[in-house]
Amino acid sequence: MTVETPHYQFAERVQQVPQSFIREILKVTSKPNIVSFAGGLPNPSLFPVQELENCAAKVFQKRGAQVLQYSETEGYYPLREYIAARYHQKFGLNISVDQILITSGSQQALDLLGKVFLDAGDKVLLERPTYLGALQSLSLFQAQFEEVTLHNDGVDPDEFEEKMFNCNPKLFYCIPNFQNPTGLHYSEEKRRMVAEISSRYPAMIIEDDPYGDISFSDKKALPIYAHLPEKTILLGSFSKTVAPGLRVGWMVAHRDIIRKATIMKQASDLHSNNLSQHILFEFLSTYDLDQQVFKIVKQYKYQRDVMLSCIEEYFPENVQYNRPEGGMFTWLSLPSTTHARDFLAKAIEQNVIFVPGDSFYASSPDPQTLRLNFSNVSDTAMREALRKLGTILEYTNW
Amino acid sequence: MTVETPHYQFAERVQQVPQSFIREILKVTSKPNIVSFAGGLPNPSLFPVQELENCAAKVFQKRGAQVLQYSETEGYYPLREYIAARYHQKFGLNISVDQILITSGSQQALDLLGKVFLDAGDKVLLERPTYLGALQSLSLFQAQFEEVTLHNDGVDPDEFEEKMFNCNPKLFYCIPNFQNPTGLHYSEEKRRMVAEISSRYPAMIIEDDPYGDISFSDKKALPIYAHLPEKTILLGSFSKTVAPGLRVGWMVAHRDIIRKATIMKQASDLHSNNLSQHILFEFLSTYDLDQQVFKIVKQYKYQRDVMLSCIEEYFPENVQYNRPEGGMFTWLSLPSTTHARDFLAKAIEQNVIFVPGDSFYASSPDPQTLRLNFSNVSDTAMREALRKLGTILEYTNW
Repeated sequence: MTVETPHYQFAERVQQVPQSFIREILKVTSKPNIVSFAGGLPNPSLFPVQELENCAAKVFQKRGAQVLQYSETEGYYPLREYIAARYHQKFGLNISVDQILITSGSQQALDLLGKVFLDAGDKVLLERPTYLGALQSLSLFQAQFEEVTLHNDGVDPDEFEEKMFNCNPKLFYCIPNFQNPTGLHYSEEKRRMVAEISSRYPAMIIEDDPYGDISFSDKKALPIYAHLPEKTILLGSFSKTVAPGLRVGWMVAHRDIIRKATIMKQASDLHSNNLSQHILFEFLSTYDLDQQVFKIVKQYKYQRDVMLSCIEEYFPENVQYNRPEGGMFTWLSLPSTTHARDFLAKAIEQNVIFVPGDSFYASSPDPQTLRLNFSNVSDTAMREALRKLGTILEYTNW
Repeated sequence: MTVETPHYQFAERVQQVPQSFIREILKVTSKPNIVSFAGGLPNPSLFPVQELENCAAKVFQKRGAQVLQYSETEGYYPLREYIAARYHQKFGLNISVDQILITSGSQQALDLLGKVFLDAGDKVLLERPTYLGALQSLSLFQAQFEEVTLHNDGVDPDEFEEKMFNCNPKLFYCIPNFQNPTGLHYSEEKRRMVAEISSRYPAMIIEDDPYGDISFSDKKALPIYAHLPEKTILLGSFSKTVAPGLRVGWMVAHRDIIRKATIMKQASDLHSNNLSQHILFEFLSTYDLDQQVFKIVKQYKYQRDVMLSCIEEYFPENVQYNRPEGGMFTWLSLPSTTHARDFLAKAIEQNVIFVPGDSFYASSPDPQTLRLNFSNVSDTAMREALRKLGTILEYTNW
């Protein structure tokens, strides 16, 4: 019997969402012995497992039935208070609780903002390159993407103003702290510049900040939000500082926007996981988040140092790379004859994987770029794998 | 200093999402002494708090770092296997694991299906009345709603075929088991009829089934999915059988649809809460879900009996009401001179609340209808509150 595969009438947007090449690569990681620079995973050895276990037990004992029940779409009130207080402590920002919406990771915040702001055909301005998850999420709303060049200290000012003027985007999406994929960080001056220019155009800024806490230096740059609060939507997450499996992120914005985003969230998933929010709040009340962050920073800084020294030692001189001051990634540019996908094919033969940079462009991808993750590879594995990559680069006739 | 409120350019869909009147009513429930028939909350006294606490401890001990890490978009594999096995055990259905996607409650499944299937202006056929959350969720995709009359044993066959023929909907959304808001249940014949008619038209069926397990009789009706698997998307949830705060639901469909929905889910929130999925799987492996369901059924059946006998005793004869054979709700029709919103205003004065039925219509709401929840009110509170409602109905001159 032949079973005919049915043909479903999918929506137009289904054709427009870029597939995640990373997802495909990550399937390879289940091979034993593979060394992966491909993922964007925090180092699980730093998860506060015992502490969260204690907190979970306390939460079940103190308010078991409450945390298992339906709850408010906005999120657990004390957790929102904690987030507001932390912004005040770190940056002197005055954010009220009704300006904070808890989301299922900051990925969901992108989905909700697409729902709140984007009609089909609306323009969205993105850094070049940018976070793949933002491309996927915002493409669901059939946005038209425009790009602005990203320099070492942030976006190009003239090009930014030119795009704001000529393209009239509805949203500008950026990751000013230790960007995924490049590891780049906006200077104070560039932050003020983005705020100043944006104040004169209709676009809203989405300032995505999952990595801000993971800073290897003492310099704390003010978020763009601080310069232009009414037109900036600031996203945060506990995924990189506590644990991603809890899926707890947040959105800070003007309360008119939070109100609309809350309606969208109610329609999307009613509310975020209640148990996780309570466990997280218990953790944040019992332990010191800054101590947890300190441990992560120390470890990732060490791993970054190992990675950069290996690149320095093993890679040919014509390979360019960034020196990230925080976060989880660095970004490389290969010589013009070398394509990252060809390099990956050879790397996989040596049981090493990474993500070719072409996945991170809204258009005209640069085939010579690639992203390396340093947060989730041990120093010995890293040395061995980067030596292999260096050898491939050195001796292959591209 | 006058601060001018900024005017944001929201997307068109923002205007189209119906506000949840229920949400507004639920804010009143924080008043002490209020008796609420308004919510759709399971009874928290039946949550297996101690069991879930034990399972959480075990999960942290056995695979703490793993459950706190990012995980697959599709959901925890053993949990998907459990769901497949349960459908086989209950209904003899053969569903493979790659036909199952874990969602953040079944509310998220609606969002994902909107993303997979709906372009602006597409038609969606709904029962009249229907679940408010479906109206909210699907309106985000700027669907045009069409309705079909719901009788005691399911939708009207002639009208159903007429709408399929004339409106050519992309989706038909239904809740065949103990519907929210009416408590109505499709007969076996109506299920076959819906499948048979649907097989001849392009529309996909979304069969939402959060209440199927909460059946007060031994009769188990086959899901519509069993009659037309390639064109039916079956949604399920642990919210009513274990606990809603965990936000774990699922979608069963042809694997081509699951693949598209998985891409949409990745863009929407990467994956559902990993910790909850593991705790839930530990619970389902250690304890017997059917015993948990048995407890819930026994208690809700008792509460339904109390509610119906009070309505019988205290309400005027010209009030019509359903006798639900499962689920959490019953549905009333007041005499033609009486509007449920006026009735609610008087009920609130007596510290009793419920949801007027007009929230549950895609168009031309029936102002005389209302929904009463019986799962989350104790028998004594219920008797007292229904007596008050009866008195209002009996003695008010509308």
